Amino acid sequence: MTDQSIHLDEQLLETYDDTLSKQGISGERIAKRLSLLANIGLTEDNGSRRPGFSFLEREAKDKVIEWMKEADLTVSEDGAGNVFGRLEGKKKNLPAILSGSHVDTVPNGGHFDGTIGVLAALEVAQAWKETGYTPNKPYEVVVFTDEEGSRFNGGLTGSEAMVGDTDMEKTLLRRDYDGRLFEEVIQDVGLTVQDYQDTGRDLSEIETFVEVHIEQGKKLEKAGLPCGIVTGIAGPYWLKVTFEGLAGHAGNTPMDDRKDALVAASAFIQAVSTLPRKVNETAVATVGKIEVNPNGTNVIPGEVLLSIDIRDIQLDSRTMLIDHIIEAGKEIESDTGVRFMYESVHDVAPAPVPENLQKQLAESCRANGIEPFALPSGAGHDAMIVGRHVPSAMLFIQSKEGISHNPKEWSTLADCVQTVHVLKHYIETLQKA
Amino acid sequence: MTDQSIHLDEQLLETYDDTLSKQGISGERIAKRLSLLANIGLTEDNGSRRPGFSFLEREAKDKVIEWMKEADLTVSEDGAGNVFGRLEGKKKNLPAILSGSHVDTVPNGGHFDGTIGVLAALEVAQAWKETGYTPNKPYEVVVFTDEEGSRFNGGLTGSEAMVGDTDMEKTLLRRDYDGRLFEEVIQDVGLTVQDYQDTGRDLSEIETFVEVHIEQGKKLEKAGLPCGIVTGIAGPYWLKVTFEGLAGHAGNTPMDDRKDALVAASAFIQAVSTLPRKVNETAVATVGKIEVNPNGTNVIPGEVLLSIDIRDIQLDSRTMLIDHIIEAGKEIESDTGVRFMYESVHDVAPAPVPENLQKQLAESCRANGIEPFALPSGAGHDAMIVGRHVPSAMLFIQSKEGISHNPKEWSTLADCVQTVHVLKHYIETLQKA
Repeated sequence: MTDQSIHLDEQLLETYDDTLSKQGISGERIAKRLSLLANIGLTEDNGSRRPGFSFLEREAKDKVIEWMKEADLTVSEDGAGNVFGRLEGKKKNLPAILSGSHVDTVPNGGHFDGTIGVLAALEVAQAWKETGYTPNKPYEVVVFTDEEGSRFNGGLTGSEAMVGDTDMEKTLLRRDYDGRLFEEVIQDVGLTVQDYQDTGRDLSEIETFVEVHIEQGKKLEKAGLPCGIVTGIAGPYWLKVTFEGLAGHAGNTPMDDRKDALVAASAFIQAVSTLPRKVNETAVATVGKIEVNPNGTNVIPGEVLLSIDIRDIQLDSRTMLIDHIIEAGKEIESDTGVRFMYESVHDVAPAPVPENLQKQLAESCRANGIEPFALPSGAGHDAMIVGRHVPSAMLFIQSKEGISHNPKEWSTLADCVQTVHVLKHYIETLQKA
Repeated sequence: MTDQSIHLDEQLLETYDDTLSKQGISGERIAKRLSLLANIGLTEDNGSRRPGFSFLEREAKDKVIEWMKEADLTVSEDGAGNVFGRLEGKKKNLPAILSGSHVDTVPNGGHFDGTIGVLAALEVAQAWKETGYTPNKPYEVVVFTDEEGSRFNGGLTGSEAMVGDTDMEKTLLRRDYDGRLFEEVIQDVGLTVQDYQDTGRDLSEIETFVEVHIEQGKKLEKAGLPCGIVTGIAGPYWLKVTFEGLAGHAGNTPMDDRKDALVAASAFIQAVSTLPRKVNETAVATVGKIEVNPNGTNVIPGEVLLSIDIRDIQLDSRTMLIDHIIEAGKEIESDTGVRFMYESVHDVAPAPVPENLQKQLAESCRANGIEPFALPSGAGHDAMIVGRHVPSAMLFIQSKEGISHNPKEWSTLADCVQTVHVLKHYIETLQKA
């Protein structure tokens, strides 16, 4: 944290074509609001640091609450600190359309991840106010708590609480980066365990959730498009793999008399890097973490531990990929005599986006002169959690060079505003259904 | 260190066939001496801990000095603490035959590594005394200081000092495991820097050096032989390799859009494991150490550092292997776009054993009814250092399961005694030359 401030709005407006500000949507307002949020928890690198359940996340939520009130939304908050700004529809008893994202960040994050999704949802309500439009169905803007999970090494905490999926027993045992227990941490920002566990909302009150988010990849940049339609969110499956060979002296053990755990593991890493293509275009698998024992230059590795992140947007193809990867490990075991062991340590189900929602979003893209472009989301989002219970869609905004979770994260204001137009059109389309 | 004691002699004698004790050589004496040394610095695991330049190494040397005197050797010591026990030959002016090894150990080492080489050399002198034999040439038994290098993370210190190869500037900057400087440490055992740097011996005084050592590998056990003839000592060459790719989100980066440093490194590890066979039977290469950055399960590795240990007993084939390994890295760079960088961080020249020495040793094996068996030494030994300046040979004794640097290190007394017979025969053969 520093005394400096960042003038994100000036940077954003520098290249902005104001003709995009129409139908009540204001590029300048979005830029100013992005800039105001960016200055909450500004880091020395000009990044953002607003951990979940921190005073800084709270400050950002309070800022959003101001803007919700400006748009005549009725503000409420649940036991997990999720903030809702509700606009009643002409037909009060219909389930609501929900849109939003989060305002917490990773330790030295960017200024678009999360915040632009909240501001986009807000801008729709503000535009409606300015043009005198009232939707048929209730509309709610949401700010979910602690999406990034940098505090407790978890994430998606607020959306999970809203849909009633929190494992309270596990949650209460969590300790944050300072070693403090969950209960203690949430008290900082005025929450209690009692209220937290009663958070679950009646989900029949929500018809559709739609989240705007930056892509955090390069596909839209390559396609030269402001935004794209997410086909599904790839839930991560983490496999912990152990190769157990035999440590030995690097000088005294002939090449043919070795059970080198790292040589076996490297054959496995090679296999893991080629298998996703055999299963699905959208599938990915990454060996991100390795531990070698004893890890001495002149000692043949006796044991190697690997962590593998496996994702796809469909459960069946992801399962197939996991099976292929395990098979590869077993083959290497029988080829090398190095023992292969594995266990699943993390499993978040993929959330495909319902096709009818994708089609409607495609129409809204066309209506705004944007060629519909479908792409998967490799990272998890609140829409993945909400999507388990409520039809959920996502719009991605082009990210410069795909850089994210980094102060250099960037989207142009024009791309942001065009995406808001698509979002607004989509939500208005939903009024007719 | 404990108050317990180990009765190594009883264990050794249990399976010993006393008919091998002949021509002045006594299995019982060797067993008792091994046992007495084993009890100096005995660890809780029944291993030995006698760091170089420690009181414990000193105590072991003093014990050897007693036995040198028992064999009528004249004891002297140089500035590095190397101990020499000299028997004058019938022809005093001829250069001496030198044999011995070291009595220091790794932190929790075995009871044969080093000590058996010293006791074997001593046993030859003792046997001569008992049989009334006087050699033509002077004979010296040597105990080199700090061969293992567990104190300063170096090793071969004493033999290097004797041949005058010490880099005094570097040595004086060394700190031991307690952070103490070299100068301070050697003062503990009565040495001074002044005497240390004047250590270098006139090497024309030595005709041949021969070292007995345990194999620390499994070749002799597989061949069912008590001892074997070392063809050369493979000097280690250490290469530090860096693969520099691009870190990225494991979920958001399609498989075809990655520069995964670990995938590149694993292709390299595969190559390193196959290349030695293409160069030489005795060549080995090991990737023992790896560091991955950032090393997070859901992050594509951006950088991988590897340490490679490359050895062979011939310099030209080792150089060829190094070249092949570097070529493999460059190919991977051009295939993957992941940058490959390398630097040499350690380079000890291999020491081939002169062929005439190997032939003479083979004759001495045959004379003792042992089929000559040639094998390389993958580990470094004092003979590697002495061999740079003086013709040097080595005899390996069979090691049980190749286990070494471990309390479980074991050689049978019969194998030790048979090797002493070969050594004695060899040294006597050298008298005629």
